[in-house]
Amino acid sequence: MVSETPGSLIRDLYLSESFSGKSECAGVMAKLRENGFSGETVLVSDDVFAKMSDTVHPQGICAVVRQPVYDTEKILADLTGKEGRCILVLENVQDPGNVGTMLRTAEAAGAAGLFLSAGCADLFNPKTVRSTMGAIYRVPFVYYESARELTELLKSRGIKVVAACLEGSEEYTKAAIDAPAAVFIGNEGNGLEQETLSLADVRARIPMEGETESLNAAVSAALFLYEVKRRRDAFVTDSTSCD
Amino acid sequence: MVSETPGSLIRDLYLSESFSGKSECAGVMAKLRENGFSGETVLVSDDVFAKMSDTVHPQGICAVVRQPVYDTEKILADLTGKEGRCILVLENVQDPGNVGTMLRTAEAAGAAGLFLSAGCADLFNPKTVRSTMGAIYRVPFVYYESARELTELLKSRGIKVVAACLEGSEEYTKAAIDAPAAVFIGNEGNGLEQETLSLADVRARIPMEGETESLNAAVSAALFLYEVKRRRDAFVTDSTSCD
Repeated sequence: MVSETPGSLIRDLYLSESFSGKSECAGVMAKLRENGFSGETVLVSDDVFAKMSDTVHPQGICAVVRQPVYDTEKILADLTGKEGRCILVLENVQDPGNVGTMLRTAEAAGAAGLFLSAGCADLFNPKTVRSTMGAIYRVPFVYYESARELTELLKSRGIKVVAACLEGSEEYTKAAIDAPAAVFIGNEGNGLEQETLSLADVRARIPMEGETESLNAAVSAALFLYEVKRRRDAFVTDSTSCD
Repeated sequence: MVSETPGSLIRDLYLSESFSGKSECAGVMAKLRENGFSGETVLVSDDVFAKMSDTVHPQGICAVVRQPVYDTEKILADLTGKEGRCILVLENVQDPGNVGTMLRTAEAAGAAGLFLSAGCADLFNPKTVRSTMGAIYRVPFVYYESARELTELLKSRGIKVVAACLEGSEEYTKAAIDAPAAVFIGNEGNGLEQETLSLADVRARIPMEGETESLNAAVSAALFLYEVKRRRDAFVTDSTSCD
């Protein structure tokens, strides 16, 4: 995680004595210099390092990182750009691992950004940060106040508001969820709020067999995001073949 | 979880004093009788119950459940039956939550069963059991010894061996992964073993944008399983419309 951090965001960098002697350390430091890190490192004893870290088996390197701040307008401009991308919107998703996994998936699916309601797990929770596998440094994110205001803003920019839900009348593979779209994923236990559902342009569901009542929230998000990507890729391929 | 347990698998059932007085308890007991449970319940004090449970806030009901035993041949017969289904094969997947989420997803995607290598997280780990959301009682599973023997068996039955990997030459949406297929998912950090990759009929990858190096293993499994399901559903729809 540390070696993926943009140098400009690193305020302090700590190394444990035993890690600083390893060849791995030289590799991480080289990567950090490449990322633009030009600050000093602080060497601490292994005992002190163990107290600084929240993990049972700390790796021996620890950075104090500034939280990046992103701009909603910039994300929306990127989203409605010529490639036609999507964004992921999380409403009260509470499991830190789920939030992190979703940010990681969003990057892989080419999403322009992540919007989170105030009721979501903290994006800077250590478990969330680790489960993003570095995507937290690359995918822009913004916390939003009101689903009503956000959906109004999105609609005013021609972005389709897609609600993932269990009772959706249309299957996600057949629903009108082409980019530019904002995919809304709700709380693990209760899904999206009724108000949010009513504000959506499209309410789509993932078909399920057996007696499953629902899918894991990160799994649902992945299926939706990759469905949007699939259509975009097909569109791009079609356009290219017409040239 | 307890209320989803088939009655025939329950050996002992314990209730805490405070839970036994709640209306919720009557509901769970009615569901359990419906599931075929005909045994006695043991009432214990809340203090004793807290010691019996592995969670910080136990819900007040606890069952000792027999581990079900499934038959490989029966799973394969189901897999190659007329509907054309898939199975999920996990090789050294180590996160208990991932294994549970994958079993849950497998049920929803209509998989006929789950095969696990001995190096996977224990399916009966409490975290795994909880993250299956009851699918552990409904999806048959078998532990396997050797990838070579398993892939030979699968191929001899006409089941396609599909390896999910990062270096696959084909994208999963375009690869020949139609049912009946066995989708192999590897370890979170290292993917599938080289030997397993070399034994596969198809090596397919999920396209990724940005700088993502990989997807979460449960997310990868879901995208593959739902791709197989999508093609099966399309085939069933086509066949129906021909009648």
